[in-house]
Amino acid sequence: MRFGVDVGGTTVKIGVCEDKKVIDTFVVKTTKENLFKDICEGIKDYAAKHNGEVEIVGFGIPGVVLNNLIVNMPNIGLTNVDLNEVVKPYFPNAKIASTNDANAAALGEALVGEKSSSSYMVTLGTGVGGGYIIDDKVIGGPHAATGEIGHMYIDSKHEFKCNCGLKGCLETVASATGIVRLAKTYYNDFKTKLDKETMSAKDVMDAARENDPLGLKVLDLVAEALGRALSIIAVTCDVDVFYIGGGVSAAGSILIDAIKKYYDKYSFYALKNVRIELAKLGNSAGMLGAAYLI
Amino acid sequence: MRFGVDVGGTTVKIGVCEDKKVIDTFVVKTTKENLFKDICEGIKDYAAKHNGEVEIVGFGIPGVVLNNLIVNMPNIGLTNVDLNEVVKPYFPNAKIASTNDANAAALGEALVGEKSSSSYMVTLGTGVGGGYIIDDKVIGGPHAATGEIGHMYIDSKHEFKCNCGLKGCLETVASATGIVRLAKTYYNDFKTKLDKETMSAKDVMDAARENDPLGLKVLDLVAEALGRALSIIAVTCDVDVFYIGGGVSAAGSILIDAIKKYYDKYSFYALKNVRIELAKLGNSAGMLGAAYLI
Repeated sequence: MRFGVDVGGTTVKIGVCEDKKVIDTFVVKTTKENLFKDICEGIKDYAAKHNGEVEIVGFGIPGVVLNNLIVNMPNIGLTNVDLNEVVKPYFPNAKIASTNDANAAALGEALVGEKSSSSYMVTLGTGVGGGYIIDDKVIGGPHAATGEIGHMYIDSKHEFKCNCGLKGCLETVASATGIVRLAKTYYNDFKTKLDKETMSAKDVMDAARENDPLGLKVLDLVAEALGRALSIIAVTCDVDVFYIGGGVSAAGSILIDAIKKYYDKYSFYALKNVRIELAKLGNSAGMLGAAYLI
Repeated sequence: MRFGVDVGGTTVKIGVCEDKKVIDTFVVKTTKENLFKDICEGIKDYAAKHNGEVEIVGFGIPGVVLNNLIVNMPNIGLTNVDLNEVVKPYFPNAKIASTNDANAAALGEALVGEKSSSSYMVTLGTGVGGGYIIDDKVIGGPHAATGEIGHMYIDSKHEFKCNCGLKGCLETVASATGIVRLAKTYYNDFKTKLDKETMSAKDVMDAARENDPLGLKVLDLVAEALGRALSIIAVTCDVDVFYIGGGVSAAGSILIDAIKKYYDKYSFYALKNVRIELAKLGNSAGMLGAAYLI
């Protein structure tokens, strides 16, 4: 049996996969201390209950992982976990693989998307991440940093300070946090029904959909940053398709259409027809991709 | 025998390669009309003279080539040349491969450079090109546009118009043409011994080396654009090493050091130690890379 594990600090989602589909899922509730023990026991139980053998376990890690060594999971607070060491004892005959969660999601989307030789997924969440896939393989890079496009310099207009220490990073404007930041920045310049103190990124995107002037302004700025970023990614590593995922992508076609407008404006002529599509799998992309790392 | 062909409109350089080295070279003088006929006859003659058999012929094409179909060679004025069709009759048993000249050079540099899993070469010539190599393979992209980084938006300060129709492209400032453009733009703002009408990019870089104030200003602007561009490439596709080549790179360590300064300033913290090195092979990089496409 083939398992894809979407690792979280307290809730771990595990997908059982076949034929490039998630055919069953289960959740393991755990703690930082017992994280991989609980995951492995959960998988072992599932396999036993279904008379299956564990052949492949793939992990999508919220952090930096290189060659099955988890360097750091900042939000969980674990460092230096050797997956081979902690997982192998449970499944000595299984193949173990791992990548970061953005890469896993990118692979999941590539597997269910229209056949393509290469794709780049952009995940718009609290931050902005990405994943680059060629021929259904994750291109992770020697520092596991391919897809750290949240820290691409893009916004010379505001140059907001980023958590990473740099200025003008893509995620300072195109993440959920960035969207609220932009709405606050322009709050007094536009009519709006948004509440300055309590608005979320979703509220801002919903307002845009209802033609709220502030919402539209923010949508325009976010889409310009993303259209620019995609045009830069495209000349750096030419792909067939961009997938836009993550919580912010719930804004749907209003966001995709606005990104396309700016991509068309800023992209190199030979790359105008690269597809830009909403991610399809939502939260299960990571499980599917993790399961098919090998 | 393994041949790498660096295609030009009137002069074609051909390298005979073994053990990832160019062991001999010869030149074919030709015309647009007889380009591939002359190349193939040149290779055939060479092989016959050396009692060798032609096993591999790789081409570095100044233009767009996909799956051995040359879509366009703008400076030569040829379109839609099927290399399999024109070359196979001469060497029915040989393997034929092709990529654009920037990719070929990138592969050549990767082959002679310190062992690395991935590299990105930036070629600073009349324009700016690039090539992305993973495990000694060219990553060309579905539109053969990976490495078109000359058209990455980078210069929000000047936003010079680019030949491609866009504004602010990297090559509007970091190419030989861009360097002269910058020197002209700032000509009246700095003391200089440069001649406004006749100066070349080399003159500007030479002036910088001699502490000419205009030369230093231009070097700083070029290095800032390139440091920024490398920081963006690095988060998009994480590599071990950047190679800087092309005519402008003859400026040498003064340029590399200035780029490193800005790369260090603008790069994501996890990627500070990516190496930035001068390309080593000069004009023979393309022949070597072309010969080792397969």
